[in-house]
Amino acid sequence: MGENVDSEIIEHHVEEEMEKKDARSHAASSSSFLENFSAPSESDREAHSGTQSSHRLLAYSDALISIIATVMILPVAHTKMENNEELRESVQLLLTTKIAVYLMTFLIVTVAWAAHIRLFQVIVRIDDCLALLNLACMMLITFLPYTFSLMAAFPENILGLLLFCGCVMVMGVIQSVIVLYAFSRPFLLNEQIQISENQNFYKHHILKVIMRVPLMCFFASIFSFIFFQLSYVLLAVVIFLPYISQSLKWCRSKAIGQVPESPDSTLFYTYLPNEPLSKDRVEAFSDGVYAIVATLLILDICEDNVPDPTVVQKQFGGSLIAALRVYGPEYLAYFGSFATVGLLWFVHHSLFLHVTKTTRFMGLLNTFSLAFVGGLPLAYQLTHEFPADSRNELEAIQISCVIIFFAGIFQLTIWVVALYNERETLHPYVRYGGREHIFMLAKLSLYPCVALGTFFLTCILSKFSAAIFHLMEITVPFAFIVLRLLVRVGRASLRLIFCPDRPDQRGAVVEEDDETRVPFSALVT
Amino acid sequence: MGENVDSEIIEHHVEEEMEKKDARSHAASSSSFLENFSAPSESDREAHSGTQSSHRLLAYSDALISIIATVMILPVAHTKMENNEELRESVQLLLTTKIAVYLMTFLIVTVAWAAHIRLFQVIVRIDDCLALLNLACMMLITFLPYTFSLMAAFPENILGLLLFCGCVMVMGVIQSVIVLYAFSRPFLLNEQIQISENQNFYKHHILKVIMRVPLMCFFASIFSFIFFQLSYVLLAVVIFLPYISQSLKWCRSKAIGQVPESPDSTLFYTYLPNEPLSKDRVEAFSDGVYAIVATLLILDICEDNVPDPTVVQKQFGGSLIAALRVYGPEYLAYFGSFATVGLLWFVHHSLFLHVTKTTRFMGLLNTFSLAFVGGLPLAYQLTHEFPADSRNELEAIQISCVIIFFAGIFQLTIWVVALYNERETLHPYVRYGGREHIFMLAKLSLYPCVALGTFFLTCILSKFSAAIFHLMEITVPFAFIVLRLLVRVGRASLRLIFCPDRPDQRGAVVEEDDETRVPFSALVT
Repeated sequence: MGENVDSEIIEHHVEEEMEKKDARSHAASSSSFLENFSAPSESDREAHSGTQSSHRLLAYSDALISIIATVMILPVAHTKMENNEELRESVQLLLTTKIAVYLMTFLIVTVAWAAHIRLFQVIVRIDDCLALLNLACMMLITFLPYTFSLMAAFPENILGLLLFCGCVMVMGVIQSVIVLYAFSRPFLLNEQIQISENQNFYKHHILKVIMRVPLMCFFASIFSFIFFQLSYVLLAVVIFLPYISQSLKWCRSKAIGQVPESPDSTLFYTYLPNEPLSKDRVEAFSDGVYAIVATLLILDICEDNVPDPTVVQKQFGGSLIAALRVYGPEYLAYFGSFATVGLLWFVHHSLFLHVTKTTRFMGLLNTFSLAFVGGLPLAYQLTHEFPADSRNELEAIQISCVIIFFAGIFQLTIWVVALYNERETLHPYVRYGGREHIFMLAKLSLYPCVALGTFFLTCILSKFSAAIFHLMEITVPFAFIVLRLLVRVGRASLRLIFCPDRPDQRGAVVEEDDETRVPFSALVT
Repeated sequence: MGENVDSEIIEHHVEEEMEKKDARSHAASSSSFLENFSAPSESDREAHSGTQSSHRLLAYSDALISIIATVMILPVAHTKMENNEELRESVQLLLTTKIAVYLMTFLIVTVAWAAHIRLFQVIVRIDDCLALLNLACMMLITFLPYTFSLMAAFPENILGLLLFCGCVMVMGVIQSVIVLYAFSRPFLLNEQIQISENQNFYKHHILKVIMRVPLMCFFASIFSFIFFQLSYVLLAVVIFLPYISQSLKWCRSKAIGQVPESPDSTLFYTYLPNEPLSKDRVEAFSDGVYAIVATLLILDICEDNVPDPTVVQKQFGGSLIAALRVYGPEYLAYFGSFATVGLLWFVHHSLFLHVTKTTRFMGLLNTFSLAFVGGLPLAYQLTHEFPADSRNELEAIQISCVIIFFAGIFQLTIWVVALYNERETLHPYVRYGGREHIFMLAKLSLYPCVALGTFFLTCILSKFSAAIFHLMEITVPFAFIVLRLLVRVGRASLRLIFCPDRPDQRGAVVEEDDETRVPFSALVT
């Protein structure tokens, strides 16, 4: 086991490679000597069985899925607003189709992603064949958004529906093949299933869960020829079925008492709110979404906002700066959205540093937060597209505030849910009453509070809405830098107000000392 | 050290969490007991010093940088070809500006990325302040492609140049602040530097290297007011300076013998061809590029290829299928490019599974390979934009073959370079003469060979070029599935021809047995 651990570390932390080179070469030589006496090291096992760690395959899948989840925001963002038209109307127009398609795609793709996580929590090692099958599966997932836009554009036509059902059915077949292949080579499986006596039970349970959705799609596609509205209902049921059945189960268990389930059946594919969801993959997926969203506007700027030399010569008398000044608001929108998305990523990053285990419910809240984050560039673009002091501008700014608020509040909810089960899901020092608890709370509530404040300020001082919004954009990054200081000042002043008899000044000093203390043991080792 | 390792594993392999829960809780309790006696565990150290593992920050940075590196292919891909015009002319038009901008951006961004890797090989832990500084740095990097497109569109105007130099200078300042900040808190640094006695030497060396580029940019921006052509030369020198100086040094050392350098100075920021480059990050960056490139065409399809309901009603008599048939070639291009990019990723993935250490030279070759991969969607789009059997179509197909060939051949070169230093860079079983050696060679050479074959076939049978190309697209994925079998058959037949006296048949059987052998020890443990 020791060598196994060593080789893992080397795989994932090349920056520590140099210090451990000796240790590794020692481990390698010892493993070749002791192969018959100890468990083979990771790389040796790979070499013998032709299997590989699935880490990078999953990272690549996460990258692909996160791009696809956010891709439908592009048609929304590229819808040009007419200045003479009322924003309210165009937004209502958008809401009906494009935003709905975006949210549907995001939801469906994250459902597919969750299914992918479940599958590869069972299958922890891969070989070439599985990698290729997974790529085929990815290709079908990337095609899903297009079927959705077809459905939205032609709701009466069953072609979009049939395409969608076809994709899902083929994906179901591929996933089943993956499961059958993996169970025929048990060394690819999760160790827990490898050592389990009822592998067949697992296989059938997983296959049953996997085939449920394609089967429903099969019926939906048949019904679509007869009465296509029913097919849409059927598809909606498919997506929410596990949630509905689980909440029914939960209600029943609360009403008539806890039903003890067999421990074997509850580990995988349970759809329980506290079903573990690979934290690595939740992070990778979120990183992908944040990265795409942060750069969405620069993609547009690079493509569209380079003026034509002839236009510059004719309209601006050859002055490039004058020509670029026209695009000024778009640069501002880019920097604003990049900073906001970057800081929301930063909060997410801080949060997940303290989380030890992600559950399915936290993953769901994370998805909601990300769906709002995806709308941010659009909102920022809107704030700069209307003439100053117009009603449209005010509404665009308020929409931005609402989106930021919800993106932040869902992050906060993840933390609250984690606190609810803090022994399982949080590091000790961030639990209620822990050292970092208040600081984390401050970090998480900064954006929702600021967004809410800006929203109400713009309601009252509607004349200065743009100024308030830009001030907010500029202040928030600095607020994050001095947040630790602010929290300490806040705590000290609270203590001073409520418990003036306690020696708060000394306490603060001691705490400060604790904060900046260099871990000398780390220096020595 | 044992607890440290344990907590790392749990962080990165949540799928193994359940088995180790007991071990972890034991480690946590023991660490709180033994804190004064043993080195503190990773998470404890983080809690005390407020530092964090930099793993996710780097993953996010890699995602951002890979998107930015490939973003300039979008203007190239969106250039519409005129059917009546000759492809040669339009390609020449493209080559002069857009492709040049794309390649320049890719090069510059990967240089910035390599600098980022170097920096965070020295700084291995982060805190909130470093995370925020890094985000500011990322924002500036994402703005670089735009300055390039300005330079390309207005080569006579110094505004693009000034913007570029400004970005680089601010980035230099931020990086210096990061270095100064990290050296003022040594527990953030690489352990090797932490325990080193001449930390100040390192600090000055790193600052010197970091500030070299911004200083040159400062001079370039001053010169641009006087004689702007000189500025471009200066910037070109900046990029190639480390390569030039290193190749000069190498030539000198070959001519007058090896110059022994102090071991301290050669570890970081050396720009030697065998300088280690974090393998994790090379993989993450490549994954990002492959993911973006694979989905580039679906982004366009989702946005542009949903027909307008009124158009469908008027032009196609309400038949959606007839309307979508117009876009048929674009779907084909999407599936073709997704499959090719996916399989190139698969080859890359297989290659890097066998690589134990990545060097700067391998990173450079990887960059070249990725730059060609970035051009693939464009090439695939071209193949379907021209009428069948036209000269344009033939040339588009040949360009696609050339791009695939180079993307593949650079991957092959990475392997050859790794073989050149195989004791350091490759796993034993894939070294020359190893078990997996020939199979890996076959995997890597499949795409270059097929591309070359297709190219020459289309030269000879120019009438069937499209058919040959499509056949190639369909065959290659299946070739990958049966590749292991093909290699074995090839080896057996070669043996039969050259050494007919050896008992080849029995050898093949033994090998097969070895291949499919289930590692029982893995099942037991």
